[in-house]
Amino acid sequence: MKDRVKRIFNNLEKKSEAIIIKNSDEHHIDENFFYVTGLNQGLFEGSIAILFPDGNIDLIVPELEFETAKKADVNANIYKNEKEFYNLLNNSISSFQNIGLNFKSISLRDFLKLKNKLSNADFFDISEGIEKTRLIKDQDEIKLIRKACGIADNVAKKIPELICEDLYEYELAAEISYLMQKNGADSPAFETISSFGKNSAEPHYSHGNVKLKRGDFVLCDFGASVKKYNSDITRTFVFGNATNQQKEIYETVLNAQQIAFDTIKTGLKGRDVHNAVDSFINNTKFKGRFIHSTGHSLGIAVHDGGVRLSHNSEVELKENMIFTIEPGVYIPEMGGVRIEDDVLIKKDGIELLTNSSRELIEI
Amino acid sequence: MKDRVKRIFNNLEKKSEAIIIKNSDEHHIDENFFYVTGLNQGLFEGSIAILFPDGNIDLIVPELEFETAKKADVNANIYKNEKEFYNLLNNSISSFQNIGLNFKSISLRDFLKLKNKLSNADFFDISEGIEKTRLIKDQDEIKLIRKACGIADNVAKKIPELICEDLYEYELAAEISYLMQKNGADSPAFETISSFGKNSAEPHYSHGNVKLKRGDFVLCDFGASVKKYNSDITRTFVFGNATNQQKEIYETVLNAQQIAFDTIKTGLKGRDVHNAVDSFINNTKFKGRFIHSTGHSLGIAVHDGGVRLSHNSEVELKENMIFTIEPGVYIPEMGGVRIEDDVLIKKDGIELLTNSSRELIEI
Repeated sequence: MKDRVKRIFNNLEKKSEAIIIKNSDEHHIDENFFYVTGLNQGLFEGSIAILFPDGNIDLIVPELEFETAKKADVNANIYKNEKEFYNLLNNSISSFQNIGLNFKSISLRDFLKLKNKLSNADFFDISEGIEKTRLIKDQDEIKLIRKACGIADNVAKKIPELICEDLYEYELAAEISYLMQKNGADSPAFETISSFGKNSAEPHYSHGNVKLKRGDFVLCDFGASVKKYNSDITRTFVFGNATNQQKEIYETVLNAQQIAFDTIKTGLKGRDVHNAVDSFINNTKFKGRFIHSTGHSLGIAVHDGGVRLSHNSEVELKENMIFTIEPGVYIPEMGGVRIEDDVLIKKDGIELLTNSSRELIEI
Repeated sequence: MKDRVKRIFNNLEKKSEAIIIKNSDEHHIDENFFYVTGLNQGLFEGSIAILFPDGNIDLIVPELEFETAKKADVNANIYKNEKEFYNLLNNSISSFQNIGLNFKSISLRDFLKLKNKLSNADFFDISEGIEKTRLIKDQDEIKLIRKACGIADNVAKKIPELICEDLYEYELAAEISYLMQKNGADSPAFETISSFGKNSAEPHYSHGNVKLKRGDFVLCDFGASVKKYNSDITRTFVFGNATNQQKEIYETVLNAQQIAFDTIKTGLKGRDVHNAVDSFINNTKFKGRFIHSTGHSLGIAVHDGGVRLSHNSEVELKENMIFTIEPGVYIPEMGGVRIEDDVLIKKDGIELLTNSSRELIEI
């Protein structure tokens, strides 16, 4: 993974002698820790990775992660208490003055402690340099995302067989997650969304104790995680015969997605894609009912680097970026449709990494 | 949930006019957002909760979370862009000078932005006040954790039936997660650990493409999440007849756990429990092979508030705290045993929330 570290340093605007990636507790883990080390197991709470311009990495980890840490091409050290932690850190970088930090991830408390312990250092934000690096996937990453997409895609094809009278949202979510894991996912990429009827109008509603009713939309948004890399797909079905309104919503979203596919081209900005989709929907009777961004970068995080295809997105589309394309139309109290696929940007167009049927399926 | 907010203010050392809970992206969500609102759905990236001493809460959320946010007893507002976000924030608290922040969770970048936008305010760390509040569970929380524990416990009982020749680690993990969700878990509390043989010597190894061999330890560490509240249980089995060494390791861990159960008493410190367990293990031939803390607070986060039963834990044990008790012994390249249960501290002792058999099961 030395190449990733070197690329990060090359993408920095300010010269830095070292970069510190600091994990806090389970809810505040910097996924860059896994990106730079290539580790795909372990939790690594309270761990730190120190990156050097030549691509080398020092790790300082608690004892319980040491066996796992040794699998990476790094110099791994164990700490047993805070004093040992800061001694090791000092040994590694006490002479350095310009140290890069991921301001987007490090907690204020961890920063204040670092500043106190390394009082001579000047810390600056390298989050954009890391994001810029991570946006362009290398071949190892593409391989893992492709695998994660294949798993989700195969499960998407099986969902119509799972939908039946008296099904509960939580049951369908359990089946989807199970099928992904039986097919090789390490875990679901995120809590599987399986929302019926009016719940499908809430984009981040996950699932509940709600029974399927005839006429409901069935919205399933899920992804597989493979060695920390993710896929993210959404399919929406109708249980029974779709009404005209349901068909109209569905066709609008499907056409909106095709517009995104046709628009994406290297050299454009992220907002160009979103604006094309948004204008299209706003010229239908569903004006104002597309209430989120058109997509997001996908990788070691599901919303990778926080980079989105939204109305103010300045990101320039380049070869080997991977984005989700997920337009939706949501009618409160009635329901919503979202169709989401993952695309790899190529020199001259896109490759769809998920390709299960996008036509409306009435069950 | 007004009572929770009032309790937080009562637990602050410094008087504060308002508290800001700020979520960043998916990997940097402050679980206190869910604790104070009682919301148990939604992702709420980029959302903010502003708490007031009278228990009231203002939320500022993106449009896609608004339908979900309305379910809470709060004043919910939508923002569409950064400008609207800060306008709403200003409307809510621009006149305030003393504002509490969770320094443990807010990212350095979000803090610098807040500081810039609310330049008159003095921000201070209220993370300890929140942790103190969350350590003592209220009845709603105990009910949810009890349910999450019951689900994990029932699944633990079924694991011996799932273990068979030619089973892969990832398959067993998939079955465990599936059973929890079919039994009412919203999701696994964390990536289910299912490690065979020498992999069981890595406490945070999750699972891989590894086939079960006769004589292997089978270590399963998993939990259920119910409306954001978690359980966390570990059982270790032997596939085949246990060797004398395996039996010895197992008995040591089982006895160590009993020592913890017997030690826990209101008024003691967390370290008293850990030290009792650690000394016991260090007086056996497995000296030095217990490489993590004895347990952690359990709740809306799995490692709730980062509070652990470790050698330097100053936390005073009180009624209605919930901890995991999880001693382990790990022999690199050979394997490890961990036994973990969840306990509710009562006025005069403990109640075990997980109670499936802890005796060594040879399969």
